[in-house]
Amino acid sequence: MKHYKSHFYALICLFFATNALFVSCNQNTGISGTSLPARIENGMIVFDEPHRAAGQQSMLQFAADPIPVVRVGFVGLGMRGPDAVERFCHIDGTSVVALCDKYEDRAVACQKILSGAGRPEAAVYSGNEGYKELCERDDIDLVYICTNWQMHVPVALYALEHGKHVAIEVPSATTIEDCWKLVDASERNRKHCMILENCCYDFFEMTALNMAQHGVFGEILHVEGAYIHNLEPFWKHYADNWRLEYNQQHDGDQYSTHGYGPDCQVLDIHRGDKLNYLVSMSTKSVNGKKRAKEIMNTEEFAQGDHICTLVKTEKGKTISIQHNTFSYRPYNRLYQITGSDGFANKYPSEGFTFKPDNLGDQADGQVPDIENLNIHGFAPADVVAKMKEIYRHPFEKEIGMTAKEIGGHGGMDYIMDWRLVYCLHNGLPLDIDVYDTAEWSCMGELTETSIRNNSMPVKVPDFTRGDWDKLDGLKFHFVNEQ
Amino acid sequence: MKHYKSHFYALICLFFATNALFVSCNQNTGISGTSLPARIENGMIVFDEPHRAAGQQSMLQFAADPIPVVRVGFVGLGMRGPDAVERFCHIDGTSVVALCDKYEDRAVACQKILSGAGRPEAAVYSGNEGYKELCERDDIDLVYICTNWQMHVPVALYALEHGKHVAIEVPSATTIEDCWKLVDASERNRKHCMILENCCYDFFEMTALNMAQHGVFGEILHVEGAYIHNLEPFWKHYADNWRLEYNQQHDGDQYSTHGYGPDCQVLDIHRGDKLNYLVSMSTKSVNGKKRAKEIMNTEEFAQGDHICTLVKTEKGKTISIQHNTFSYRPYNRLYQITGSDGFANKYPSEGFTFKPDNLGDQADGQVPDIENLNIHGFAPADVVAKMKEIYRHPFEKEIGMTAKEIGGHGGMDYIMDWRLVYCLHNGLPLDIDVYDTAEWSCMGELTETSIRNNSMPVKVPDFTRGDWDKLDGLKFHFVNEQ
Repeated sequence: MKHYKSHFYALICLFFATNALFVSCNQNTGISGTSLPARIENGMIVFDEPHRAAGQQSMLQFAADPIPVVRVGFVGLGMRGPDAVERFCHIDGTSVVALCDKYEDRAVACQKILSGAGRPEAAVYSGNEGYKELCERDDIDLVYICTNWQMHVPVALYALEHGKHVAIEVPSATTIEDCWKLVDASERNRKHCMILENCCYDFFEMTALNMAQHGVFGEILHVEGAYIHNLEPFWKHYADNWRLEYNQQHDGDQYSTHGYGPDCQVLDIHRGDKLNYLVSMSTKSVNGKKRAKEIMNTEEFAQGDHICTLVKTEKGKTISIQHNTFSYRPYNRLYQITGSDGFANKYPSEGFTFKPDNLGDQADGQVPDIENLNIHGFAPADVVAKMKEIYRHPFEKEIGMTAKEIGGHGGMDYIMDWRLVYCLHNGLPLDIDVYDTAEWSCMGELTETSIRNNSMPVKVPDFTRGDWDKLDGLKFHFVNEQ
Repeated sequence: MKHYKSHFYALICLFFATNALFVSCNQNTGISGTSLPARIENGMIVFDEPHRAAGQQSMLQFAADPIPVVRVGFVGLGMRGPDAVERFCHIDGTSVVALCDKYEDRAVACQKILSGAGRPEAAVYSGNEGYKELCERDDIDLVYICTNWQMHVPVALYALEHGKHVAIEVPSATTIEDCWKLVDASERNRKHCMILENCCYDFFEMTALNMAQHGVFGEILHVEGAYIHNLEPFWKHYADNWRLEYNQQHDGDQYSTHGYGPDCQVLDIHRGDKLNYLVSMSTKSVNGKKRAKEIMNTEEFAQGDHICTLVKTEKGKTISIQHNTFSYRPYNRLYQITGSDGFANKYPSEGFTFKPDNLGDQADGQVPDIENLNIHGFAPADVVAKMKEIYRHPFEKEIGMTAKEIGGHGGMDYIMDWRLVYCLHNGLPLDIDVYDTAEWSCMGELTETSIRNNSMPVKVPDFTRGDWDKLDGLKFHFVNEQ
């Protein structure tokens, strides 16, 4: 009896020891330092994905009731905000109701923009919490947010919870957790939440997108984007050095949306395809450290000077995104499409490759002269000009001239705001929905997580929670559309 | 007694079950389908690395005794070989002793090249094993290999084991296992084993490398390369469709060395820095499948149309390499350097960015006019011309004119062969050693492995087995050097 008894107790100890080892074997796969819990599953880092609360519904294709006059409150009037106020003064059917900035003088300064355009004065709010009073007003439809990155989400959430649509500068959120908060707040309150990615509305991008949607490039396979812009002359212009400080604390591509937005549009992300996972890699920091030393007198700098990211989609497409705000090299806001039948590129120079077959029959019977078409090189200027004419985007046809006059990065800012107002006014789905907002903004934390884990793949959440293939491609809405 | 006895046996079962789970938890980390065993360690795929055999020594900086007349045997006379025979006819101090091809007529055809240059006939070998007899000759110093990829290593190993130096077309090996075999055979027999990466000798690449080595770009941070070349007109010219067939069976970047070689040189790989790991991603196959259907009448095609790879080094640098032999877009053999103080780019157009400080004092007192230097844009043509003049590579100064006359991709092929002969003749270390050969060639299997595992990071072996930081940068050797 004793024999079995002692062996029994010995085995109990062994059993628990083995189980402890087994459990720790699995617990070692947890990732630290993330905004939501994340772990390694089958060699990939996966973040927790919150379930949709009961009663909440998808915002896919959501359209609000038409708004006769879009009444806007602006929060954040430092670098980008005042230009937005100016642009709205040139969009009919809008009313600038309120101006808010942490620093009162910045809000007050924008009154001149209004009066200069013959518009009435707006209410002014200031201080750290001024945005709350603004959001609590009952005479505002849209809160337009151009604060520093860290205030994007607090302001947006407060606005959404108070029944306001929101438009948020880029990136709209800086963590996965905040991306989900925006999605859930938008769904819960059934209010729009749009990322103000102006590059989707630049002329080359719109034309190329239109060509892509008409099959000119065949099946889209690989797209590229980049934000390569040495910000050395600009760091000090951000209040309290907020932008440099954020880069000091975070590696990863914290400013990916200028390339990423247009790229996701051309790939019909959550409108037929889905971002599956990404891998990211950064160099050491050399100039970042120098700037931090000069401006903030610190030795540490997290963000590598040059960052590369690759993303894989469900349908087998890839996206390449680069980021560099520190090196001495020409500005490059790369936008590039490689399809099975053609190619489009912007930066360092614009160019297209077309196959003769894909120029096809045009509705109006016009086709370019394909005599000199080189399918292994850039199409000649006359062919490009003709193709640009044939595939001029409806937005450009409608408002391109006005946009170029009013300006804002050559006009794209104006087109972006104009489309936002148009869709709100006419009760149409916006061009950019909250799922785009989350998808394009989540790159910051996802890339940083990959970089901090030897560039391991990181799953990109499906913010639509399963509806990524419900729509048949990206469509822009118009009054009286077919 | 019964009580403890039954619990005891129950516990034994539980104990083994738990252990089985624990062991399987660890055994699931093996990777299948690789040339050498590979497993996941801490989220990274690691291939076995064979130990150096006793008596074998490093080939770092190896120099053979000077060779008065370099006697060459050519194996593989299909696409690249005959041009090489032609080039050697224009290099003094060489003798073409033997010509070998699987197909006898191809070898015989090259006799005309010799006679046309006033050189004596060579011995001819043919058939599947003709190369063996060639390698067994005692009057050959160098075996120059331009066979299909699959024969590169068998021929090279046989040559090395028979005491011959080898020069091998790209990629020199297609698997990790074969890369190690080349390294070990070179070390064991103390014979050179050089990858014939001609792009290292192209004029822009040599000039940019020279600038980089003189600090013009500051600290090199990020380099890029690409082989984007639609081979649609060429697939059928490879005997028995060997190249298309290889791509049909293998995903990953199987042809990375044109960008990768020059990039590794500018980063002093295994001469101060080390490749640590890579991640790779490919698109679906669309045009690859079409070509395979047309040419080989098959439905399957493994290689994605477009492939992107990112590599991280020990010193915190990154490399980006792309591959696309199927899409309709301009030829792009990208070569790009981003440094802390400057930039160089080739394709789609050449350009540089220089900082005034880095133009510095030149040995001969010449400096370009920096009046119009834009550190955020491309340097003007006159500055570039001056800088190219100041930093013209010694190779170009020595042999550039001749190279352009004799040709071979504009001259780079000639300079490559000329340097090889020069170093053999003078008993100097070659520009490219067996570790370069292995490092640049291992990309094929490493990228395929990453792609097949959701782009997980894959460790790049240190083929020098610990000597990667023994040398102080890449140096080219000359007679009478300081």
